[in-house]
Amino acid sequence: MGKSGMRNSSGSSMSSGEEKPSNGHTAVRKINPDLVISEIKHGARPGDTYVRLHRAHARAFRKVGPGHFVAMPASNVPATTFERVYRAIKRVLVGRPLETAEEVHERLTKVKGLAVFGSDAISSSAYATEATLMILMVAGNQALGITFYTSIAVAIMFAIIAFSYRQTIYAYPQGGGSYRVSRENLGTLAGLVAAAALLIDYVLTVAVSIAAGSAAVLSAFIASGYGEQIGMLDRTLPHPFNLNVLVSLFFIGLITLGNLRGIRESGTIFAIPTYLFIASLSTVLLVGLFKAFTGTLYPPEPPPILPVTESLGVWLILRAFSAGAVAMSGTEAIADGVPAFQPPESKNAAITLTAMALLLGSFFLGVSFLATRMGLVPGEETIISQVARAALGTSLPYYVFQIATMGILVIAANTAFADFPRLASILARDNFMPHQFLYRGDRLAFSTGIIALGSIAALLVTVFAGRVDSLIHLYAVGVFLAFTLSNTGMVVRWQKIRGAHWQTSRLINGTGAVLSAITLLIIATTKFTLGAWIVIVLIPIIVSFFHLVHTHYTRVAEQLRILPDQLPPQRIEQLVIVPIDDVNYASLRAMAFARTICSDVVVLHIALNAEHAEKVRQKMKLYAPDLKLILVDSPLRAFVRPLVSYVDAVHSQYPDAFVTIVLPEFITAHWWEQFLHNRTAARLQREFEKHPNVAVVLVPYLLEK
Amino acid sequence: MGKSGMRNSSGSSMSSGEEKPSNGHTAVRKINPDLVISEIKHGARPGDTYVRLHRAHARAFRKVGPGHFVAMPASNVPATTFERVYRAIKRVLVGRPLETAEEVHERLTKVKGLAVFGSDAISSSAYATEATLMILMVAGNQALGITFYTSIAVAIMFAIIAFSYRQTIYAYPQGGGSYRVSRENLGTLAGLVAAAALLIDYVLTVAVSIAAGSAAVLSAFIASGYGEQIGMLDRTLPHPFNLNVLVSLFFIGLITLGNLRGIRESGTIFAIPTYLFIASLSTVLLVGLFKAFTGTLYPPEPPPILPVTESLGVWLILRAFSAGAVAMSGTEAIADGVPAFQPPESKNAAITLTAMALLLGSFFLGVSFLATRMGLVPGEETIISQVARAALGTSLPYYVFQIATMGILVIAANTAFADFPRLASILARDNFMPHQFLYRGDRLAFSTGIIALGSIAALLVTVFAGRVDSLIHLYAVGVFLAFTLSNTGMVVRWQKIRGAHWQTSRLINGTGAVLSAITLLIIATTKFTLGAWIVIVLIPIIVSFFHLVHTHYTRVAEQLRILPDQLPPQRIEQLVIVPIDDVNYASLRAMAFARTICSDVVVLHIALNAEHAEKVRQKMKLYAPDLKLILVDSPLRAFVRPLVSYVDAVHSQYPDAFVTIVLPEFITAHWWEQFLHNRTAARLQREFEKHPNVAVVLVPYLLEK
Repeated sequence: MGKSGMRNSSGSSMSSGEEKPSNGHTAVRKINPDLVISEIKHGARPGDTYVRLHRAHARAFRKVGPGHFVAMPASNVPATTFERVYRAIKRVLVGRPLETAEEVHERLTKVKGLAVFGSDAISSSAYATEATLMILMVAGNQALGITFYTSIAVAIMFAIIAFSYRQTIYAYPQGGGSYRVSRENLGTLAGLVAAAALLIDYVLTVAVSIAAGSAAVLSAFIASGYGEQIGMLDRTLPHPFNLNVLVSLFFIGLITLGNLRGIRESGTIFAIPTYLFIASLSTVLLVGLFKAFTGTLYPPEPPPILPVTESLGVWLILRAFSAGAVAMSGTEAIADGVPAFQPPESKNAAITLTAMALLLGSFFLGVSFLATRMGLVPGEETIISQVARAALGTSLPYYVFQIATMGILVIAANTAFADFPRLASILARDNFMPHQFLYRGDRLAFSTGIIALGSIAALLVTVFAGRVDSLIHLYAVGVFLAFTLSNTGMVVRWQKIRGAHWQTSRLINGTGAVLSAITLLIIATTKFTLGAWIVIVLIPIIVSFFHLVHTHYTRVAEQLRILPDQLPPQRIEQLVIVPIDDVNYASLRAMAFARTICSDVVVLHIALNAEHAEKVRQKMKLYAPDLKLILVDSPLRAFVRPLVSYVDAVHSQYPDAFVTIVLPEFITAHWWEQFLHNRTAARLQREFEKHPNVAVVLVPYLLEK
Repeated sequence: MGKSGMRNSSGSSMSSGEEKPSNGHTAVRKINPDLVISEIKHGARPGDTYVRLHRAHARAFRKVGPGHFVAMPASNVPATTFERVYRAIKRVLVGRPLETAEEVHERLTKVKGLAVFGSDAISSSAYATEATLMILMVAGNQALGITFYTSIAVAIMFAIIAFSYRQTIYAYPQGGGSYRVSRENLGTLAGLVAAAALLIDYVLTVAVSIAAGSAAVLSAFIASGYGEQIGMLDRTLPHPFNLNVLVSLFFIGLITLGNLRGIRESGTIFAIPTYLFIASLSTVLLVGLFKAFTGTLYPPEPPPILPVTESLGVWLILRAFSAGAVAMSGTEAIADGVPAFQPPESKNAAITLTAMALLLGSFFLGVSFLATRMGLVPGEETIISQVARAALGTSLPYYVFQIATMGILVIAANTAFADFPRLASILARDNFMPHQFLYRGDRLAFSTGIIALGSIAALLVTVFAGRVDSLIHLYAVGVFLAFTLSNTGMVVRWQKIRGAHWQTSRLINGTGAVLSAITLLIIATTKFTLGAWIVIVLIPIIVSFFHLVHTHYTRVAEQLRILPDQLPPQRIEQLVIVPIDDVNYASLRAMAFARTICSDVVVLHIALNAEHAEKVRQKMKLYAPDLKLILVDSPLRAFVRPLVSYVDAVHSQYPDAFVTIVLPEFITAHWWEQFLHNRTAARLQREFEKHPNVAVVLVPYLLEK
């Protein structure tokens, strides 16, 4: 393009030959914004640039009616190389973008439902016994036997909690998450506390499950004897990049990507490892129990003799109970996801919940029984791996079981990846979280929530060096806080509604609430110094954050609300200022722009030099005699500040005046050339950024060579 | 300010009660941009915000006529704390800003002129002898005697060069820098080569003089015996932060600041150390010569026996001559600064030049004579320090002399600080350097040039570890290239002008040119591998840079030139697009703005959700029925890219259309709140930055709470 080509790209249309640039008004050609998609301008040759462009843009939009288009994928092509590369990578990792209409709403059968929502709870049987044993270890090998009894206590607790959640399932067929139940029945604050507890809980679920899952893989290695050769396997060392952490980070990355992709066939995918785990753990337990009763059950290696560093007391037993109570995490998931079940939703969900409770209960008790029977001691190898080896030997079935364990633990983490973004999006819709959590990514998943969860979990696993037992201390507080609030909420609800059997229902939820509260207290006190205090400190911080965000959005909404008796003016009368250095083609073009948008145009020249100012005055008389020229001598050679002061001075006399500053902005052909200009335009724009009554318009002037 | 206050700040003036916001046009109140400085709006109470502001702004501008103001210092107050602190620091370091009219043009007497322009040349006597000795050292103690003879050769060269510059002084009373003389007589390329050589030369002057000056201070320390206690004094070690480098950086910083301040009393300030050096070096030489002839001259310490590593040959002697030739640097300064002398300028300048030549010649010869007589060997202590100690003993006068040496070396650097920015500004005026070099700072100095020079010199001193001898290798090439070009230019000039005695004049400049050229050749070859190649490589690079810059500015000027038969249109007809998320107070305000600036307004809603789009359509019917709404469904939920595509599509049908995009922009009350919004405005602005036919206007909407 030559100079004249560029000069023509300014609104007047020289190329059509119908107008001449002159000092008079040019003819106004109406622009029809309602794109004529299919029609090519009469007389255009096929080689014309705009015909080519036109063809391209006809592909970009599909017209569905007057003033109504659909943006086609061609409208969404990347503009820069960087963007192109980014999109290509994203496409490989996440897949092609999905249209909003492509969302499918899969309904789950009971079998799939158990896999999707139950894997989190069932998977806890893989580590809950070990967590209890770890506590009791300090009291010596004898004390380990207590584990079986605390496990019975936990199982009873679990039965009651599960039973109370059945009530919630029937009461909230639209999904009874703790946030909703607490908020509706106990008020916003209770709801937000439950939400905060749950968000923490979900993050910990990911961290704990993944860390436990990778521990399962590594235990298999240790058992196979390759472990020592590989080295770096000591899970008890706080090495930030031990193999456990690396494997965990890999899984977290994988699950995050999978969720960004939107795992649409989730039911089926989840079913395989879940049922594989159920089947193989059942086998382990049956064989183990058989061996136990036939007296042929031996630990795979003789358990080490533990030094007694603490005597067995109530405190230690309470701590062991607290540690076992983590098994109950994930109980809420089914109640949360009732609408995902096939109708009758509540009934199917309730049956699934019962099945889950029975499976988890028997698994947990079974593992605890066998472990205590053999006097197993947790070490480098996980307890469940030791139990499996005792039952199956270091055989192929054992390895299958280990892989199934890893599978369900990873799947359990995935439950949190479904729950966290959903809860975050509900909170965002209620204005308690940033609205970014409402956005749906390329694959219709709540990308912000997924990425946030993955990042925080990865950070946690790294900081805690992938040690399941230290992460678990933070874990249970959130779970039981949510249980307590949710069950209390249900009690209040029964009190209010007083439907059929309301007193029985109230009793069940009341028992759940009281037991949860007691467990919460036990956990909070016994684990306080071990990390529970972090959660206790975090919850009010997160709730305050919710409030801060809510206050902001509420105020913004208030300020944006249209009050019929207080509409904004139809037109914003304004003073347009065109600051110029000199009268040249670019500044005349800026003046033309200014003249078009306003009848009150002031051309302002900050004069550093009287001679030059006089020249500017002369040229203005010649080329733009209709515009008012204001000269401001600047003896200190300052430019930006006097201009700001001038605008302030105008505002001091016309407090309501809206000032628009029109600046010609050079767009250089090469990046380095911009350093040969003083870039005042950008500086002025920054300067006026925070000024509510000033808008800055940069009228681009392309330097073509 | 409450909500209503904010809402009123939009152009309509609710507060005056004369208008009602309505769907009809509000009355237009004309804004008088010609500020009524002294008048306070009728009926205003003294407590009103705007009255207070008004008072402040009445101080900011002084009205000198209709539409003509002078920006007072009050118009230049800093807005942010950061700026305030920055200004306060600057004020302490650089002083209060000066008005352009405060510039004084001091004329120099011969005495002051010698100090201002001669210090650079005279100061070279402090290091030229040492540079020669350093070369000859390799041939053993015997060879050092050659120094005296090469010094005589240099002195003769110097006499001829000085004599040829007398001619230039008379021919160019307006100042005859090599750039001007070469460009005028030999063409632009020659001029630019000379300019590049000189710019390099000035940078090296600073680096060499300052490094030598700090070496003088450190030598005094070494002589006093404190040196070894302080440590880190070994100038021969390439330690990047040895004491010499640190002292040098300190001096460079000091001189840079001093020059940014604008040393107005330069003549007097410069006279003291210059004449102190002249007096004390004269004393040293007279006492030394007296001692020499009375046979009582002994080196302060017995010179070490040097190992002979190279035999004395022509090559070595030529190298020694090259090393001594650096003494001639700075000869050009007087010819450059003729207009600074009191009238008759040329005559005074010529006399000063002669005085300078005599002084430098005798000093250089004297030092060389005494040094060779005693067989001094350069080591940690400089040669001139050893000569002074031999003459005066390690006495008070010796320390005075060392301080004077340091003083004149620092002053010599200052000459470059006057010359470099001046040459850079001349080049910038001729469009060969970025125009930033034309700006005058707070104190009317060419700040960009001063800061550039200081920074490059500091870098050089650091990289070369403050070693005078390695820097000197780079030095002389530029000087003699400029000499050669300038003298050749004079020859061409005499040829053209053919005034009185033109043949004699031509002979003198011709001799100067030939001798300079020979010296240049010798230096370039002997020092080639020692660093001169750097300069030889740099010059074409710098000249290419000059050309690149010139080409850019020329093209810009071409594209900005107003061609009377090709004026820009008086008005730029445009399509205004208001992209909205929703119809709310802020978007209605943006629409009002758009309606004001154009009759062709399109409100564009990128619809992610059909229900919401329908709501938008309804609200638009209600609140802005006059504006055309375009809906673009975006099934992939993209926003920015479809908008860009829409604008492209408009351009494909109306290639000349100028599109203005009006966006409401939230200005949040707290910085963190911006993260609760999606900041699409900023993204769109970036997106359209390079689009020549699109302007983006952000209509600010202040969120007050």
